[in-house]
Amino acid sequence: MSPEHRISGSIQVLMSDFRSLDRILNPRSVAIAGVAPAEAGEFNTGLLFLETILEYGFKGNLYPLNPRGGESLGLKVYANIKDVPETVDYVISCIPARHVLQLVRDCAEAAVRAICLFTAGFSETGRQEAEALERDVARLAKELGVRVIGPNCMGVYSPSVRLSFSVDFPKESGPVGLICQSGGNTLYLVRAAAQRGVRFSKVVSYGNACDMDECELLEYFAQDPQTEIVAAYMEGVHNGVRFKRVLSELAARKPVVVLKGGSTEGGLQAAASHTGSLAGSDEVWDALLDQTGAVRAHTLDELVDMMVTFRFMPVPAGRKVCVFGVGGGATVITTDDCASSGFVLPSLPGPMRDELRSAVGGDAGAILGNPVDFPFWLAREDRYRHVLSRLLDWEGTDLMFFQIPLRSAMEELDGARVTINSLLDDTIEARGGSPKPMAVIVHCLATAEAWHAASEFATKCYEAGLPFYYSTSSAALAVDRLMRSQSRKVGVDGRG
Amino acid sequence: MSPEHRISGSIQVLMSDFRSLDRILNPRSVAIAGVAPAEAGEFNTGLLFLETILEYGFKGNLYPLNPRGGESLGLKVYANIKDVPETVDYVISCIPARHVLQLVRDCAEAAVRAICLFTAGFSETGRQEAEALERDVARLAKELGVRVIGPNCMGVYSPSVRLSFSVDFPKESGPVGLICQSGGNTLYLVRAAAQRGVRFSKVVSYGNACDMDECELLEYFAQDPQTEIVAAYMEGVHNGVRFKRVLSELAARKPVVVLKGGSTEGGLQAAASHTGSLAGSDEVWDALLDQTGAVRAHTLDELVDMMVTFRFMPVPAGRKVCVFGVGGGATVITTDDCASSGFVLPSLPGPMRDELRSAVGGDAGAILGNPVDFPFWLAREDRYRHVLSRLLDWEGTDLMFFQIPLRSAMEELDGARVTINSLLDDTIEARGGSPKPMAVIVHCLATAEAWHAASEFATKCYEAGLPFYYSTSSAALAVDRLMRSQSRKVGVDGRG
Repeated sequence: MSPEHRISGSIQVLMSDFRSLDRILNPRSVAIAGVAPAEAGEFNTGLLFLETILEYGFKGNLYPLNPRGGESLGLKVYANIKDVPETVDYVISCIPARHVLQLVRDCAEAAVRAICLFTAGFSETGRQEAEALERDVARLAKELGVRVIGPNCMGVYSPSVRLSFSVDFPKESGPVGLICQSGGNTLYLVRAAAQRGVRFSKVVSYGNACDMDECELLEYFAQDPQTEIVAAYMEGVHNGVRFKRVLSELAARKPVVVLKGGSTEGGLQAAASHTGSLAGSDEVWDALLDQTGAVRAHTLDELVDMMVTFRFMPVPAGRKVCVFGVGGGATVITTDDCASSGFVLPSLPGPMRDELRSAVGGDAGAILGNPVDFPFWLAREDRYRHVLSRLLDWEGTDLMFFQIPLRSAMEELDGARVTINSLLDDTIEARGGSPKPMAVIVHCLATAEAWHAASEFATKCYEAGLPFYYSTSSAALAVDRLMRSQSRKVGVDGRG
Repeated sequence: MSPEHRISGSIQVLMSDFRSLDRILNPRSVAIAGVAPAEAGEFNTGLLFLETILEYGFKGNLYPLNPRGGESLGLKVYANIKDVPETVDYVISCIPARHVLQLVRDCAEAAVRAICLFTAGFSETGRQEAEALERDVARLAKELGVRVIGPNCMGVYSPSVRLSFSVDFPKESGPVGLICQSGGNTLYLVRAAAQRGVRFSKVVSYGNACDMDECELLEYFAQDPQTEIVAAYMEGVHNGVRFKRVLSELAARKPVVVLKGGSTEGGLQAAASHTGSLAGSDEVWDALLDQTGAVRAHTLDELVDMMVTFRFMPVPAGRKVCVFGVGGGATVITTDDCASSGFVLPSLPGPMRDELRSAVGGDAGAILGNPVDFPFWLAREDRYRHVLSRLLDWEGTDLMFFQIPLRSAMEELDGARVTINSLLDDTIEARGGSPKPMAVIVHCLATAEAWHAASEFATKCYEAGLPFYYSTSSAALAVDRLMRSQSRKVGVDGRG
């Protein structure tokens, strides 16, 4: 076997391919084609990219391009990529589609190896001439040895080199790799997951995938030592057989969650309009994902939930859950949510119930069953922590759901001299080093103030290593999927 | 027929019953039993009720009660309800359960006709002696002619007399009547619906329903001229046959949405622990609601969505929807959501597509199919309003979904010199007097800032009479239910 190859699990990838992709996803220098001169008061998307990359703090050299030259945001604007005084690793194209072929030629002459085409107006339009142009771009780039991401995409977010297409993405790296065929959905997925503590190794918004496609990116993430969990939003695949093989091999090594956009007939057509994807029927996708061992998500929020779950939730040993929290009505709905995802709530043993009753000091307003409804006005001093510790130690359960409905700006909690904030602090402290898997669920958010508070709680939770959810139904669904995917894996390993 | 009766539709209710209930739900005077003296630094739930009712601005007289007498929050505290210098319409009990029988006796002696038992510790505990006490309370109250709401409930929110158990509930009245067996869920339902423009005639949190039950309250709402739409969260019913009759008669006259908490086996047990309800299986509830013509909601948020929909959404004439908004990935997911609830998206006719293309000025980044993806950076001057007006006039569709993913604090929109705020203003203005049913969907909320903005948009929308949703899937589901309930009604009327 040549040194060009390495075998890792069952995936065999050319090391040179991995390295060249790794260079593109961690570029040392970036050029942006089509930057309007900021000083002229003009606005365009090239300028927006430049502003964003500058503000985010890119670690390498940055070169705006525009045939008119001049300056933009204090940087010299080069007329052509060929004029840039170094070989650039990654060029972002914000120029009109009709100029892209020339940009590819110029990049090749300048020895540039990768272009990200933010430029749209290709196969997604459904127009024959635009589809032909996309094929021409792909063919020319291949001939000249230039890799293309897109067209019609946002490209690469790579926190380790501080490259981002949005200033509010986290600056720290993390273990999750994400590929996403929609730029807008990428923005949402990164922000929503980040808000709950997920950090990324690399994220690639890859659009129409005329050259670099989902398979190549998933192979990269399979190899990438920085990536431990993989998530994907895709509207279609170019080569179903290859995709199935790649996904199977990846899923055997790392947890993978896939959201297929365009799962209904109308959605398939919309996917074709959006990224020119050949999409495949919903049943085919169900079967395919099931066979490969990847987890399927059905909404963007489920995809976020699964990133959070794989990142922060240890796999529970069984399905017996203790639900602890505030609110009688919430306990009823919570119980339904747990049951719907296959969890059982064992009854609180009599002696434990008696012990908790005396700890709570009477039971007016408290429901000491399972769910345990612990009214906040009883949550004083050490009572609360004692009760929580006892429940965490309860050997009759495999995991705990801690749920707080956050219905308002909390005036009633302040009235009760106990805040949800202190309740959450106590919860995190009482949990201490307990090995019991626990999810925190903050739900019933009715006001902007409640969302603001929830956002702070999310931070507290992920800093304490806890998975955080916005509904008990979504938490139960996500933990169910975690357990199913894990039991598959154990089964496969057992046979292998 | 005696003048005591009035016939309205098929419901025959004693006018005296309606009047006496109406008095309880619109009390001129309120007493609160069990108020700690605020000045002593003590805290209890009676004091919290007093603070809340004072701050909310109750229009009638307010009397704190405590055997110790004294003052609280500037009001004289009476030792006993019998000492109060007027006949009080509504007494809120925050005293321990063991003292409630005496309170009922005292109230009867003082000619008080209604007690709301916030007091818990009755049948919901599952303890025999507590269940017996609840029965005793109900029996004694009936003997003495005192009506009881609860126990284990928050009681009445009646904006027209400014009585509320939460200071942040809307002060204006509206057409929605709500009954809710859980106090906590009441808080969420009112706040979440209010945030999207729903206003209430009366809301009753009725807990264990030892005396006043769901049937009586639903009969009241059927009669109440202030109430046009009825929503209910219930965990069980006391008399299934009567409930079915009452619900059928109500649903024939006013839209009704019911959320049944405790729909799984575990949830049924939790419901018993929460409000001591005899709950009934999920299948029974499905059949019952289907037969009565009530709409079933499956989550609290679905119940809120249905209140919003019945309040603000005209019934579309058919299922052909035009989806208009921002973001290619969003259009794909939106299309799936519409299809899943039975809506179809007709293709944009060729001439219209051409017209829009020239109005947009090229199609780079725009998807001019259906969904129409109109990138915000094209939304300048009159272009945007023109496109929206044309789509609203499109006779090939029955309704419009306007969707905006609100992924962030909108920095990229500011960068593009267009804000979602101005986009929404333009949308509302362009819509003008168009009779086409339209829903506004603001989704993909990843940050507290986005929630804050969404909250402001919700206000703009309901002030313009538009239903507002947080996901396309929930909007499509709600409008589907609206249309199904309406087509049933037409069917019933046709037969009747």
